[in-house]
Amino acid sequence: MRKESNRRSDQQKKSPGIETETPKKMEGGGAPAPAAPPPAPHPAVAPLAFLLGKWRGEGEGSFPTISPFRYGEELVFSHHPSKPVISYTQRTWKPASGEPMHAESGYWRPRPDGSVEVVISQSTGLAEVQKGSFDAEKKTLTLQSELVGNASKVKQITRAFQLVDGELSYVVQMATITTSLQPHLKALLKKI
Amino acid sequence: MRKESNRRSDQQKKSPGIETETPKKMEGGGAPAPAAPPPAPHPAVAPLAFLLGKWRGEGEGSFPTISPFRYGEELVFSHHPSKPVISYTQRTWKPASGEPMHAESGYWRPRPDGSVEVVISQSTGLAEVQKGSFDAEKKTLTLQSELVGNASKVKQITRAFQLVDGELSYVVQMATITTSLQPHLKALLKKI
Repeated sequence: MRKESNRRSDQQKKSPGIETETPKKMEGGGAPAPAAPPPAPHPAVAPLAFLLGKWRGEGEGSFPTISPFRYGEELVFSHHPSKPVISYTQRTWKPASGEPMHAESGYWRPRPDGSVEVVISQSTGLAEVQKGSFDAEKKTLTLQSELVGNASKVKQITRAFQLVDGELSYVVQMATITTSLQPHLKALLKKI
Repeated sequence: MRKESNRRSDQQKKSPGIETETPKKMEGGGAPAPAAPPPAPHPAVAPLAFLLGKWRGEGEGSFPTISPFRYGEELVFSHHPSKPVISYTQRTWKPASGEPMHAESGYWRPRPDGSVEVVISQSTGLAEVQKGSFDAEKKTLTLQSELVGNASKVKQITRAFQLVDGELSYVVQMATITTSLQPHLKALLKKI
Protein backbone atom coordinates (compact mmCIF):
# COMPACT_ATOMS: atom_id res chain seq x y z
CA MET A 1 0.00 0.00 0.00
CA ARG A 2 3.07 2.22 0.10
CA LYS A 3 3.31 4.73 -2.67
CA GLU A 4 6.18 3.98 -5.02
CA SER A 5 9.05 6.38 -5.23
CA ASN A 6 8.70 8.56 -8.28
CA ARG A 7 12.26 9.76 -8.33
CA ARG A 8 12.91 8.09 -11.67
CA SER A 9 10.08 9.66 -13.59
CA ASP A 10 11.79 12.94 -14.45
CA GLN A 11 14.99 11.23 -15.43
CA GLN A 12 13.07 8.81 -17.56
CA LYS A 13 11.39 11.55 -19.51
CA LYS A 14 14.85 12.65 -20.63
CA SER A 15 15.83 9.17 -21.74
CA PRO A 16 16.80 9.11 -25.40
CA GLY A 17 15.15 5.71 -25.57
CA ILE A 18 11.78 7.29 -24.98
CA GLU A 19 12.02 10.24 -27.30
CA THR A 20 13.82 8.69 -30.23
CA GLU A 21 11.61 8.71 -33.28
CA THR A 22 11.50 5.86 -35.70
CA PRO A 23 14.12 6.58 -38.35
CA LYS A 24 12.66 7.57 -41.70
CA LYS A 25 12.92 5.16 -44.55
CA MET A 26 16.07 5.68 -46.56
CA GLU A 27 15.67 7.66 -49.72
CA GLY A 28 15.60 5.62 -52.87
CA GLY A 29 14.37 2.51 -51.11
CA GLY A 30 16.56 -0.04 -49.39
CA ALA A 31 16.02 -1.93 -46.16
CA PRO A 32 12.85 -1.13 -44.20
CA ALA A 33 13.35 1.30 -41.34
CA PRO A 34 14.02 -0.47 -38.06
CA ALA A 35 11.42 -0.02 -35.32
CA ALA A 36 12.21 2.43 -32.53
CA PRO A 37 14.17 0.74 -29.76
CA PRO A 38 12.18 -0.02 -26.62
CA PRO A 39 12.59 2.45 -23.76
CA ALA A 40 15.61 1.82 -21.56
CA PRO A 41 14.60 -0.12 -18.46
CA HIS A 42 14.72 1.42 -15.00
CA PRO A 43 18.35 1.27 -13.76
CA ALA A 44 17.35 -1.10 -10.97
CA VAL A 45 15.79 -3.46 -13.51
CA ALA A 46 18.56 -3.21 -16.14
CA PRO A 47 20.70 -6.07 -14.69
CA LEU A 48 17.68 -8.38 -15.05
CA ALA A 49 16.76 -7.16 -18.53
CA PHE A 50 17.65 -10.61 -19.83
CA LEU A 51 14.40 -11.87 -18.26
CA LEU A 52 12.12 -9.26 -19.85
CA GLY A 53 9.67 -10.40 -22.49
CA LYS A 54 7.33 -13.28 -23.18
CA TRP A 55 8.67 -16.83 -22.99
CA ARG A 56 7.00 -20.03 -24.05
CA GLY A 57 7.97 -23.69 -23.91
CA GLU A 58 7.45 -26.99 -22.21
CA GLY A 59 8.18 -28.30 -18.76
CA GLU A 60 7.94 -31.42 -16.71
CA GLY A 61 6.97 -31.97 -13.12
CA SER A 62 7.69 -34.75 -10.68
CA PHE A 63 7.70 -35.36 -6.95
CA PRO A 64 7.73 -38.52 -4.85
CA THR A 65 4.03 -38.10 -3.98
CA ILE A 66 2.63 -37.53 -7.50
CA SER A 67 2.78 -38.99 -11.00
CA PRO A 68 5.19 -37.24 -13.38
CA PHE A 69 3.50 -34.83 -15.76
CA ARG A 70 4.32 -32.52 -18.65
CA TYR A 71 3.02 -29.05 -19.28
CA GLY A 72 3.07 -26.18 -21.75
CA GLU A 73 4.04 -22.87 -20.20
CA GLU A 74 4.11 -19.16 -20.82
CA LEU A 75 6.07 -16.73 -18.63
CA VAL A 76 5.84 -12.97 -19.04
CA PHE A 77 8.25 -10.55 -17.38
CA SER A 78 7.07 -7.01 -18.06
CA HIS A 79 8.19 -3.64 -16.87
CA HIS A 80 7.47 0.09 -16.94
CA PRO A 81 10.61 2.26 -17.18
CA SER A 82 9.50 4.50 -14.32
CA LYS A 83 9.32 1.63 -11.81
CA PRO A 84 12.07 -0.42 -10.16
CA VAL A 85 10.01 -3.59 -10.40
CA ILE A 86 9.28 -6.39 -12.89
CA SER A 87 5.74 -7.75 -13.18
CA TYR A 88 5.59 -11.52 -13.53
CA THR A 89 2.82 -13.78 -14.80
CA GLN A 90 2.96 -17.48 -15.49
CA ARG A 91 0.43 -20.01 -16.74
CA THR A 92 0.65 -23.65 -17.70
CA TRP A 93 -1.60 -25.95 -19.70
CA LYS A 94 -1.98 -29.60 -20.60
CA PRO A 95 0.05 -30.21 -23.76
CA ALA A 96 -2.61 -32.37 -25.41
CA SER A 97 -5.75 -30.33 -24.77
CA GLY A 98 -4.51 -26.85 -23.92
CA GLU A 99 -6.65 -26.95 -20.80
CA PRO A 100 -5.25 -24.60 -18.13
CA MET A 101 -3.36 -26.11 -15.21
CA HIS A 102 -1.46 -23.83 -12.85
CA ALA A 103 -1.06 -20.05 -12.84
CA GLU A 104 0.87 -17.57 -10.73
CA SER A 105 1.73 -13.88 -10.73
CA GLY A 106 3.76 -11.41 -8.77
CA TYR A 107 6.55 -8.84 -8.68
CA TRP A 108 10.35 -9.03 -8.79
CA ARG A 109 12.43 -6.28 -7.22
CA PRO A 110 16.16 -6.44 -8.03
CA ARG A 111 18.48 -4.51 -5.69
CA PRO A 112 21.73 -2.72 -6.54
CA ASP A 113 23.69 -5.17 -4.38
CA GLY A 114 22.74 -8.11 -6.62
CA SER A 115 20.01 -9.35 -4.33
CA VAL A 116 16.41 -9.74 -5.46
CA GLU A 117 13.11 -9.88 -3.62
CA VAL A 118 10.16 -11.66 -5.20
CA VAL A 119 6.51 -11.95 -4.17
CA ILE A 120 4.34 -14.54 -5.91
CA SER A 121 0.68 -15.53 -5.63
CA GLN A 122 -0.22 -18.99 -6.87
CA SER A 123 -3.63 -19.93 -8.29
CA THR A 124 -3.83 -22.66 -5.65
CA GLY A 125 -4.00 -19.91 -3.01
CA LEU A 126 -0.39 -20.19 -1.89
CA ALA A 127 1.61 -17.00 -1.17
CA GLU A 128 5.39 -16.86 -1.56
CA VAL A 129 8.00 -14.33 -0.58
CA GLN A 130 11.33 -15.28 -2.10
CA LYS A 131 14.75 -13.73 -1.68
CA GLY A 132 17.92 -14.48 -3.54
CA SER A 133 20.59 -13.17 -5.83
CA PHE A 134 21.37 -12.76 -9.50
CA ASP A 135 24.48 -12.57 -11.68
CA ALA A 136 23.86 -10.12 -14.52
CA GLU A 137 26.87 -11.32 -16.51
CA LYS A 138 26.18 -15.02 -16.23
CA LYS A 139 22.43 -14.35 -16.58
CA THR A 140 21.54 -16.54 -13.62
CA LEU A 141 19.20 -16.01 -10.70
CA THR A 142 18.47 -18.11 -7.62
CA LEU A 143 15.66 -17.69 -5.08
CA GLN A 144 14.79 -19.30 -1.77
CA SER A 145 11.46 -18.95 -0.03
CA GLU A 146 11.47 -16.73 3.02
CA LEU A 147 7.73 -17.17 3.50
CA VAL A 148 5.29 -19.80 2.19
CA GLY A 149 1.80 -18.76 3.26
CA ASN A 150 -1.61 -20.38 3.09
CA ALA A 151 -0.17 -23.81 2.25
CA SER A 152 -1.23 -26.97 4.00
CA LYS A 153 1.75 -29.05 2.90
CA VAL A 154 4.39 -26.95 1.14
CA LYS A 155 7.14 -25.77 3.48
CA GLN A 156 9.87 -24.46 1.20
CA ILE A 157 10.36 -23.54 -2.48
CA THR A 158 13.52 -22.66 -4.38
CA ARG A 159 13.72 -21.36 -7.93
CA ALA A 160 16.81 -21.18 -10.17
CA PHE A 161 16.79 -19.50 -13.60
CA GLN A 162 19.45 -19.29 -16.25
CA LEU A 163 19.64 -17.94 -19.77
CA VAL A 164 21.82 -20.03 -22.10
CA ASP A 165 22.05 -19.38 -25.85
CA GLY A 166 18.92 -17.25 -25.67
CA GLU A 167 16.83 -19.94 -23.99
CA LEU A 168 15.50 -19.49 -20.47
CA SER A 169 15.46 -22.55 -18.24
CA TYR A 170 14.46 -22.99 -14.65
CA VAL A 171 14.36 -25.59 -11.91
CA VAL A 172 11.88 -25.34 -9.03
CA GLN A 173 12.57 -27.41 -5.93
CA MET A 174 10.03 -27.97 -3.19
CA ALA A 175 9.91 -29.36 0.33
CA THR A 176 6.67 -30.46 1.98
CA ILE A 177 5.74 -31.63 5.46
CA THR A 178 6.55 -35.19 4.36
CA THR A 179 9.23 -34.78 1.66
CA SER A 180 12.62 -33.08 1.79
CA LEU A 181 13.68 -30.38 -0.67
CA GLN A 182 14.04 -31.86 -4.14
CA PRO A 183 13.36 -31.04 -7.79
CA HIS A 184 9.69 -30.57 -8.64
CA LEU A 185 9.50 -28.60 -11.91
CA LYS A 186 11.84 -27.82 -14.78
CA ALA A 187 11.24 -26.13 -18.11
CA LEU A 188 12.99 -24.74 -21.16
CA LEU A 189 11.48 -21.65 -22.74
CA LYS A 190 12.10 -19.65 -25.91
CA LYS A 191 11.42 -15.96 -26.28
CA ILE A 192 8.42 -15.21 -28.46
CA MET B 1 2.42 -26.22 -6.66
CA ARG B 2 -0.53 -28.58 -6.22
CA LYS B 3 -2.20 -29.68 -9.40
CA GLU B 4 -5.71 -28.33 -9.77
CA SER B 5 -8.65 -30.67 -9.78
CA ASN B 6 -9.92 -31.23 -13.27
CA ARG B 7 -13.27 -32.64 -12.30
CA ARG B 8 -15.12 -29.82 -14.02
CA SER B 9 -13.54 -30.15 -17.41
CA ASP B 10 -15.76 -32.93 -18.71
CA GLN B 11 -18.90 -31.26 -17.47
CA GLN B 12 -17.83 -28.02 -19.00
CA LYS B 13 -17.43 -29.54 -22.42
CA LYS B 14 -21.16 -30.39 -22.30
CA SER B 15 -22.15 -26.87 -21.39
CA PRO B 16 -24.54 -25.37 -23.93
CA GLY B 17 -22.66 -22.11 -23.48
CA ILE B 18 -19.58 -23.68 -25.00
CA GLU B 19 -21.06 -25.56 -27.90
CA THR B 20 -23.83 -23.24 -29.02
CA GLU B 21 -23.02 -21.78 -32.40
CA THR B 22 -23.68 -18.18 -33.16
CA PRO B 23 -27.22 -18.08 -34.60
CA LYS B 24 -27.31 -17.41 -38.31
CA LYS B 25 -28.59 -14.10 -39.50
CA MET B 26 -32.32 -14.16 -40.03
CA GLU B 27 -33.47 -14.63 -43.59
CA GLY B 28 -34.56 -11.47 -45.30
CA GLY B 29 -32.47 -9.28 -43.01
CA GLY B 30 -33.49 -8.03 -39.61
CA ALA B 31 -31.49 -7.55 -36.45
CA PRO B 32 -27.86 -8.71 -36.52
CA ALA B 33 -27.25 -12.10 -35.01
CA PRO B 34 -26.31 -11.80 -31.35
CA ALA B 35 -22.84 -12.94 -30.39
CA ALA B 36 -22.54 -16.34 -28.75
CA PRO B 37 -22.96 -16.02 -24.99
CA PRO B 38 -19.79 -16.35 -22.95
CA PRO B 39 -19.18 -19.80 -21.46
CA ALA B 40 -20.91 -20.38 -18.14
CA PRO B 41 -18.51 -19.80 -15.26
CA HIS B 42 -17.32 -22.62 -13.07
CA PRO B 43 -20.06 -23.34 -10.48
CA ALA B 44 -17.73 -22.28 -7.67
CA VAL B 45 -17.17 -18.94 -9.38
CA ALA B 46 -20.79 -18.32 -10.43
CA PRO B 47 -21.82 -16.58 -7.16
CA LEU B 48 -19.04 -14.03 -7.75
CA ALA B 49 -19.79 -13.60 -11.46
CA PHE B 50 -20.81 -10.02 -10.67
CA LEU B 51 -17.09 -9.22 -10.26
CA LEU B 52 -15.96 -10.68 -13.59
CA GLY B 53 -14.75 -8.31 -16.27
CA LYS B 54 -12.66 -5.18 -16.61
CA TRP B 55 -13.44 -2.20 -14.39
CA ARG B 56 -12.06 1.30 -14.60
CA GLY B 57 -12.52 4.45 -12.56
CA GLU B 58 -11.00 6.77 -10.00
CA GLY B 59 -10.07 6.43 -6.38
CA GLU B 60 -8.70 8.40 -3.52
CA GLY B 61 -6.22 7.51 -0.82
CA SER B 62 -5.58 8.91 2.61
CA PHE B 63 -3.95 7.89 5.86
CA PRO B 64 -2.77 9.87 8.90
CA THR B 65 0.86 9.47 7.86
CA ILE B 66 0.60 10.57 4.20
CA SER B 67 -0.87 13.36 2.06
CA PRO B 68 -4.22 12.54 0.43
CA PHE B 69 -3.94 11.51 -3.21
CA ARG B 70 -6.14 10.58 -6.16
CA TYR B 71 -5.57 7.83 -8.68
CA GLY B 72 -6.94 6.27 -11.85
CA GLU B 73 -7.49 2.55 -11.57
CA GLU B 74 -8.19 -0.56 -13.59
CA LEU B 75 -9.27 -3.86 -12.02
CA VAL B 76 -9.60 -7.06 -14.03
CA PHE B 77 -11.30 -10.17 -12.70
CA SER B 78 -10.86 -12.98 -15.24
CA HIS B 79 -11.71 -16.63 -15.24
CA HIS B 80 -11.46 -19.90 -17.15
CA PRO B 81 -14.60 -22.07 -16.92
CA SER B 82 -12.62 -25.19 -16.02
CA LYS B 83 -11.11 -23.60 -12.89
CA PRO B 84 -12.70 -22.71 -9.52
CA VAL B 85 -10.62 -19.55 -9.26
CA ILE B 86 -10.74 -15.92 -10.39
CA SER B 87 -7.54 -14.21 -11.55
CA TYR B 88 -7.19 -10.66 -10.32
CA THR B 89 -5.01 -7.81 -11.56
CA GLN B 90 -5.05 -4.19 -10.50
CA ARG B 91 -3.05 -1.15 -11.52
CA THR B 92 -3.30 2.52 -10.68
CA TRP B 93 -1.90 5.67 -12.27
CA LYS B 94 -1.57 9.38 -11.62
CA PRO B 95 -4.67 11.05 -13.04
CA ALA B 96 -2.75 13.96 -14.60
CA SER B 97 0.14 12.15 -16.27
CA GLY B 98 -0.96 8.54 -16.51
CA GLU B 99 2.31 7.51 -14.86
CA PRO B 100 1.93 4.15 -13.13
CA MET B 101 1.61 4.10 -9.34
CA HIS B 102 0.67 0.86 -7.59
CA ALA B 103 -0.05 -2.59 -9.01
CA GLU B 104 -1.14 -5.89 -7.53
CA SER B 105 -2.28 -9.30 -8.72
CA GLY B 106 -3.54 -12.55 -7.32
CA TYR B 107 -6.26 -15.20 -7.16
CA TRP B 108 -9.71 -15.36 -5.56
CA ARG B 109 -11.19 -18.71 -4.56
CA PRO B 110 -14.87 -18.60 -3.58
CA ARG B 111 -16.18 -21.52 -1.53
CA PRO B 112 -19.66 -23.10 -1.60
CA ASP B 113 -20.27 -21.99 2.01
CA GLY B 114 -20.05 -18.31 1.04
CA SER B 115 -16.51 -17.89 2.24
CA VAL B 116 -13.71 -16.70 -0.01
CA GLU B 117 -9.94 -17.02 0.12
CA VAL B 118 -7.76 -14.47 -1.65
CA VAL B 119 -4.01 -14.28 -2.24
CA ILE B 120 -2.54 -11.00 -3.48
CA SER B 121 0.98 -9.87 -4.39
CA GLN B 122 1.61 -6.13 -4.30
CA SER B 123 4.16 -4.36 -6.50
CA THR B 124 5.74 -2.97 -3.31
CA GLY B 125 6.74 -6.55 -2.41
CA LEU B 126 3.98 -7.12 0.13
CA ALA B 127 2.16 -10.50 0.22
CA GLU B 128 -1.42 -10.81 1.44
CA VAL B 129 -3.59 -13.78 2.28
CA GLN B 130 -7.14 -12.61 2.88
CA LYS B 131 -10.19 -14.53 4.00
CA GLY B 132 -13.78 -13.38 4.16
CA SER B 133 -17.28 -13.88 2.88
CA PHE B 134 -19.59 -12.79 0.10
CA ASP B 135 -23.32 -12.34 -0.41
CA ALA B 136 -24.20 -13.30 -3.99
CA GLU B 137 -27.64 -11.67 -3.81
CA LYS B 138 -26.53 -8.38 -2.32
CA LYS B 139 -23.37 -8.48 -4.46
CA THR B 140 -21.09 -7.64 -1.54
CA LEU B 141 -17.81 -9.13 -0.40
CA THR B 142 -15.63 -8.46 2.64
CA LEU B 143 -12.07 -9.62 3.30
CA GLN B 144 -9.73 -9.46 6.28
CA SER B 145 -6.02 -10.19 6.12
CA GLU B 146 -4.97 -13.46 7.63
CA LEU B 147 -1.35 -12.90 6.64
CA VAL B 148 0.55 -9.75 5.64
CA GLY B 149 4.04 -10.78 4.61
CA ASN B 150 7.22 -8.90 3.70
CA ALA B 151 5.89 -5.62 5.07
CA SER B 152 7.92 -3.40 7.36
CA LYS B 153 4.96 -1.34 8.63
CA VAL B 154 1.64 -2.76 7.45
CA LYS B 155 0.02 -5.06 10.01
CA GLN B 156 -3.53 -5.56 8.76
CA ILE B 157 -5.62 -4.92 5.62
CA THR B 158 -9.36 -5.21 5.07
CA ARG B 159 -11.16 -4.92 1.75
CA ALA B 160 -14.91 -4.45 1.19
CA PHE B 161 -16.51 -4.53 -2.28
CA GLN B 162 -20.05 -3.87 -3.38
CA LEU B 163 -21.85 -3.63 -6.69
CA VAL B 164 -24.59 -0.97 -6.77
CA ASP B 165 -26.44 0.00 -9.95
CA GLY B 166 -23.77 -1.68 -12.03
CA GLU B 167 -20.90 0.23 -10.42
CA LEU B 168 -18.26 -1.52 -8.35
CA SER B 169 -16.98 0.30 -5.30
CA TYR B 170 -14.51 -0.70 -2.64
CA VAL B 171 -13.00 0.50 0.60
CA VAL B 172 -9.58 -0.68 1.76
CA GLN B 173 -8.68 -0.19 5.40
CA MET B 174 -5.17 -0.59 6.78
CA ALA B 175 -3.45 -0.79 10.14
CA THR B 176 0.27 -0.18 10.56
CA ILE B 177 2.68 -0.49 13.44
CA THR B 178 1.84 3.10 14.41
CA THR B 179 -1.75 3.61 13.20
CA SER B 180 -4.92 1.69 14.03
CA LEU B 181 -7.18 0.17 11.36
CA GLN B 182 -8.82 2.95 9.35
CA PRO B 183 -9.82 3.80 5.76
CA HIS B 184 -6.91 4.08 3.34
CA LEU B 185 -8.33 3.71 -0.18
CA LYS B 186 -11.73 3.96 -1.84
CA ALA B 187 -12.75 3.90 -5.47
CA LEU B 188 -15.77 3.77 -7.75
CA LEU B 189 -15.39 1.77 -10.97
CA LYS B 190 -17.48 1.25 -14.10
CA LYS B 191 -17.39 -1.87 -16.25
CA ILE B 192 -15.69 -1.33 -19.57
